[in-house]
Amino acid sequence: LKSKLPNVGTTIFTVMSQMAAEYNAINLSQGFPDFPVSEKLIDLVYQNMQIGHNQYAPMPGLPQLREAIANKIKNTDGVNLNIDTEITVSAGATEAIFSSVLATVNQGDEVIVLEPAYDCYIPAIELAGGKVVPVGLSLPNFTPDWQKVKDNISDKTRMIIINFPHNPSGAILTQDDITALKEILEENPQLIILSDEVYEHIIFDGNTHLSVLKDKFLASRSIAVSSFGKTFHATGWKIGYMVAPEAIMKEIRKVHQYNCFSVHTPSQYAMAEYLKDEKNYLGVSSMYEKKREFFQQAMQDSKFKVIPSYGTYFQVLDFSEVSDMGDMEFAQYLIKEKGVASIPVSAFYSDKQDNKLLRFCFAKGEDTLHKASDILCKI
Amino acid sequence: LKSKLPNVGTTIFTVMSQMAAEYNAINLSQGFPDFPVSEKLIDLVYQNMQIGHNQYAPMPGLPQLREAIANKIKNTDGVNLNIDTEITVSAGATEAIFSSVLATVNQGDEVIVLEPAYDCYIPAIELAGGKVVPVGLSLPNFTPDWQKVKDNISDKTRMIIINFPHNPSGAILTQDDITALKEILEENPQLIILSDEVYEHIIFDGNTHLSVLKDKFLASRSIAVSSFGKTFHATGWKIGYMVAPEAIMKEIRKVHQYNCFSVHTPSQYAMAEYLKDEKNYLGVSSMYEKKREFFQQAMQDSKFKVIPSYGTYFQVLDFSEVSDMGDMEFAQYLIKEKGVASIPVSAFYSDKQDNKLLRFCFAKGEDTLHKASDILCKI
Ligand SMILES: CSCCC(=O)C(=O)O
Ligand SMILES: CSCCC(=O)C(=O)O
Repeated sequence: LKSKLPNVGTTIFTVMSQMAAEYNAINLSQGFPDFPVSEKLIDLVYQNMQIGHNQYAPMPGLPQLREAIANKIKNTDGVNLNIDTEITVSAGATEAIFSSVLATVNQGDEVIVLEPAYDCYIPAIELAGGKVVPVGLSLPNFTPDWQKVKDNISDKTRMIIINFPHNPSGAILTQDDITALKEILEENPQLIILSDEVYEHIIFDGNTHLSVLKDKFLASRSIAVSSFGKTFHATGWKIGYMVAPEAIMKEIRKVHQYNCFSVHTPSQYAMAEYLKDEKNYLGVSSMYEKKREFFQQAMQDSKFKVIPSYGTYFQVLDFSEVSDMGDMEFAQYLIKEKGVASIPVSAFYSDKQDNKLLRFCFAKGEDTLHKASDILCKI
Repeated sequence: LKSKLPNVGTTIFTVMSQMAAEYNAINLSQGFPDFPVSEKLIDLVYQNMQIGHNQYAPMPGLPQLREAIANKIKNTDGVNLNIDTEITVSAGATEAIFSSVLATVNQGDEVIVLEPAYDCYIPAIELAGGKVVPVGLSLPNFTPDWQKVKDNISDKTRMIIINFPHNPSGAILTQDDITALKEILEENPQLIILSDEVYEHIIFDGNTHLSVLKDKFLASRSIAVSSFGKTFHATGWKIGYMVAPEAIMKEIRKVHQYNCFSVHTPSQYAMAEYLKDEKNYLGVSSMYEKKREFFQQAMQDSKFKVIPSYGTYFQVLDFSEVSDMGDMEFAQYLIKEKGVASIPVSAFYSDKQDNKLLRFCFAKGEDTLHKASDILCKI
């Protein structure tokens, strides 16, 4: 059997979570919240199962849910979308990204990935027959270097994948970044953007998420992906959505239709209702901002250096003053010897470059964050 | 934008369901049940959401659910599976098929598809870069012609996709078919089988489903796919599973991991519990057999000819004595003028060959079946 993905192993998130379990460590590695999903949302799912909303939803998603998504986007990004042609509900953001890449990247196309990068982009590109062109974000603050991006564009470059608020770093886009991106699209008519915006509703310090959807020109050449699992801390519900202009969405839906066809029906009805109250998504940032504050404050008393986190539920810490180990070795040491699990940032680079950084997930109860930071401060 | 699936449009199931809604017709087209999901199963999902089982399940599926699946397979097929390496929970059977094909079919590989065929196989093969080799089942009873299959095997043939109990016809495999399949595998060491067994628990007249898993040699070269949506009449829950030998499953999981990563967690806990009572799946056949009996009996008084249906919740009717129209035209006529929706069987052939056959879904309440057959008998 010839492997089509010879370089793929078990994801770092699974590896570290398993190791955390094995050593009974506090698990701040894999990104998932440890607090409950809204009772209201759970009850909505239950009610819809009871009513009998248990058969196939329409392939692009329940119309009511696409309508609710359009209203949310109108509310936060100020744009009107056509729900018939521009929005599709997906089996989580991962499926949205996978189907989008398979639909738009052809054999031999090049795709620029800003690294460190979430781990699902590269296998999708490879399966589509594309060539990955990694471009590093600039340290220490993980800012995009658009000149470097431009230098890596060829006439084969089909797509740039961006992800802000950024996993693992928490970096966000500025208006200057948007301007630079638009310039790049203007200069390269063959290019489209895949914008992974799953942390759009987790953004701090009064900043506004700059979705590619906000700009008409940018939106006309972009696929934007979001996740209810992230926004409503129900990562196991596997429901998200994607937005794209009609011509692109038409191709993505062809893949989605034969990939999973449709998404969990009762959850779609529930989300459609739950999204009607804007507080349910607008309130998420402040909840996580408190957690970030708590964790960052606690880290002031440690030898770790705090890298600014402007969004997501992740905090990167620089451990160069703490240990000489490589980041993978140090992450393993922290689990085994100290009882705290994190993700080595080298895992997000295709060349595994090690900048002595670890990513910690702070989507946890105060007690857990307290215990973990106590341990980290004593190192 | 260059389409990677230029031949794909909206699925026939969506087209006919929409037309049924538009003309207020009884919808026996798209295959989905219209009766409720078990209260017990719904309550299990609810309880698991309340307990807090709402974050990512493990990528291959919840261990408890894989264990329960292994027990079910042990119970029905008499074989022991390794849950760590041979079973993966999927976002419905469609995702299982899609991920399996992407993982195992390489550029230029040929894949034999027995037609009429469910519509998701061909786009998956095309996206993987494979070449579809359609081989017709023999009319009138949709029996596989293994000599014809052999004649279509080349050294490039990588996979044969089979689907019994068969959608759309309800044909099932015999022991002779299994023997022939084994012979083909023995003669062609490069070949594997993808066996879509989503209707395994809907089989009639005391017949036993002959899963590829039942035979050690066959199982060592096969991927078997099943669906809880079909078995527990919850097609909108999008949960199923696949079984394959370790070496093949390793590759499939690489795709699944980056396609959707994992599947709806609360449903997995619920299914794990619900599967413990074998009555919950062993009782499904008799429930549907009554519906088939009712519908077939009623059709005795019509001018339609009943094609034997040995499994699935579909009944094919031959309308050659009723009308001279093509099957697509006649199906549209039935919706618009008579108020009953079905699926033209030509839609299941890549060459759209028309044998004057329509497929009716009988997974409906008696009242609905009664009304529909009354109408059909008057034509
Ligand atoms: C699908 S497991 C990874 C979860 C996640 O988003 C992360 O840890 O970055
Ligand atoms: C995903 S819609 C098709 C449902 C089905 O299995 C059928 O009608 O054959």
